[in-house]
Amino acid sequence: MKKLLGIDLGGTTVKFAILTEAGDILKKWTIQTNVEQEGQHIVPDIIQSIKECLQQEDLTAEDFVGIGMGSPGSVDIHNGTVIGAYNLNWRTLQPVKAQIEQATGIPCYVDNDANVAALGEQWQGAGDGSANVVFITLGTGVGGGIVSEGKLIHGVGAAGEIGHMNVDPNGYLCTCGNVGCLETVASATGIVRLAQDMAQTYKESSSLHTWITNGQEVTAKLIFDKAKEGDLFAQTIVDKFSFYLGYSCGNIANILHPETIVIGGGVSAAGDILLQGVQKYFEKAAFLQVRETTKLKLAQLGNDAGVIGAASLVHQFTI
Amino acid sequence: MKKLLGIDLGGTTVKFAILTEAGDILKKWTIQTNVEQEGQHIVPDIIQSIKECLQQEDLTAEDFVGIGMGSPGSVDIHNGTVIGAYNLNWRTLQPVKAQIEQATGIPCYVDNDANVAALGEQWQGAGDGSANVVFITLGTGVGGGIVSEGKLIHGVGAAGEIGHMNVDPNGYLCTCGNVGCLETVASATGIVRLAQDMAQTYKESSSLHTWITNGQEVTAKLIFDKAKEGDLFAQTIVDKFSFYLGYSCGNIANILHPETIVIGGGVSAAGDILLQGVQKYFEKAAFLQVRETTKLKLAQLGNDAGVIGAASLVHQFTI
Repeated sequence: MKKLLGIDLGGTTVKFAILTEAGDILKKWTIQTNVEQEGQHIVPDIIQSIKECLQQEDLTAEDFVGIGMGSPGSVDIHNGTVIGAYNLNWRTLQPVKAQIEQATGIPCYVDNDANVAALGEQWQGAGDGSANVVFITLGTGVGGGIVSEGKLIHGVGAAGEIGHMNVDPNGYLCTCGNVGCLETVASATGIVRLAQDMAQTYKESSSLHTWITNGQEVTAKLIFDKAKEGDLFAQTIVDKFSFYLGYSCGNIANILHPETIVIGGGVSAAGDILLQGVQKYFEKAAFLQVRETTKLKLAQLGNDAGVIGAASLVHQFTI
Repeated sequence: MKKLLGIDLGGTTVKFAILTEAGDILKKWTIQTNVEQEGQHIVPDIIQSIKECLQQEDLTAEDFVGIGMGSPGSVDIHNGTVIGAYNLNWRTLQPVKAQIEQATGIPCYVDNDANVAALGEQWQGAGDGSANVVFITLGTGVGGGIVSEGKLIHGVGAAGEIGHMNVDPNGYLCTCGNVGCLETVASATGIVRLAQDMAQTYKESSSLHTWITNGQEVTAKLIFDKAKEGDLFAQTIVDKFSFYLGYSCGNIANILHPETIVIGGGVSAAGDILLQGVQKYFEKAAFLQVRETTKLKLAQLGNDAGVIGAASLVHQFTI
């Protein structure tokens, strides 16, 4: 049986995995991402690491259906090129697919990291193989990927910009230049912004409120932890965050009617308290038939979503 | 060259058209919809009309690739059945595809009317054949259909419920049971509701305001006509309507990144004033890359969207 090779390219590390076509991980490894000299070492390092692994494992190009890669930046999926990946120092167009194919003799496919993570969760994670899955990742920013009838949706190219859905026309200024994007309130920094803003007017006793007004550092984790401990101010913040994210999930579901909306990324580590809050507002926004059938779930693959989804990307192009 | 037969089934009439595979209409005709006796005459009437036409035109089943039909109600596209089409008096499951195929010997495909109209505009109308088009129809309600990479999106079944996107968590109660759906403010009745509500607090001189406070009948057309004439109250209403619809279009585009969002249905007859208003708020909600590439357009096919899209449905299943 042939194999898949998944690559999750990030600003700090490059993660690799060899998988069976059924999605079982046979081998995983990681190398450091060398972003020096405009990131010119990145693709050669990846190629060398693949070659070394194939040699060690006594594998050849013929053992693989293909290589899939998730990359930061703006990806041209048809040409397999990447541009504007600033955490890799890739400012100019990088012909990633062509370089890897030429060096390895294995067909290579590239998509952006959020899409690839969406595929991973859809295939082997919380999506449980369903054909219709939306993935939302809550990290430094808010990203997303959409799988519809088994295929990633790209539209003209930038589909899945869930973090830039507008949730408040009078809201906070976003890094994208618009006002009131979901990312401004539902990312790791967004919920901290909400907390600091809401602290201005909160009048009751709260250990989190005291912490903030004393100028101590606040994190998304602290806010959720305090909410779990019963701090009312923290619970008010989580409720506001849940309102924005829940209504967004409802609207996404009204448009796409997915079987599952998977919530991942660092902030989702808060767990059930996050899921329950989002579910409450999702139900207010989702159309009856949608509310009864679309499930909200936490992501299950953690850091492996990238390599598993990257491997699955091969199937997007070959099945 | 083989032909396509499109059927647009409505509560008052059934529209038929024979098209070339390239989308040119060769012949159009209409029959009345007989909804008596639980709509049991509808499918037999359709079959008889097809048979008569084929005889007149000296055509046989072999001349057709297939028959496509748009229907009200809830459509099971895999089985070609319809249920809950209340304006047809179809309360129980109707095996439309099986009945038409058996009687005509031509493969038949069924989808809901909004999806089929979306296909029509995507193929031969404002979508101009682009692979990624969203269609929003503003009529008694607000409906929609999504074409992504050339294919209609169904999700679990009810994708495209654009009229039930939430635009105001504190808004009007919708017939669906939720509060603040787009349909409550952007349908023909929705904009009248906005007008009547806003008339309560409007203080300036306005002929539309006087009309409303005198208890005279208001329509969407009157509001847009008055706005075009320069009535400031009417313009305020149109601006509020545009705000809701424009932000919704922006959010849809952030999720799907379509090449075109086509706005049709009776309310869209207002024309450029509607399009310009929606564009203004769309630009505030759409992510930069989306704003620069997704176009808003008025529908172009009018009542023909249904039969043309129905014919195109055949290609959804056969290409």
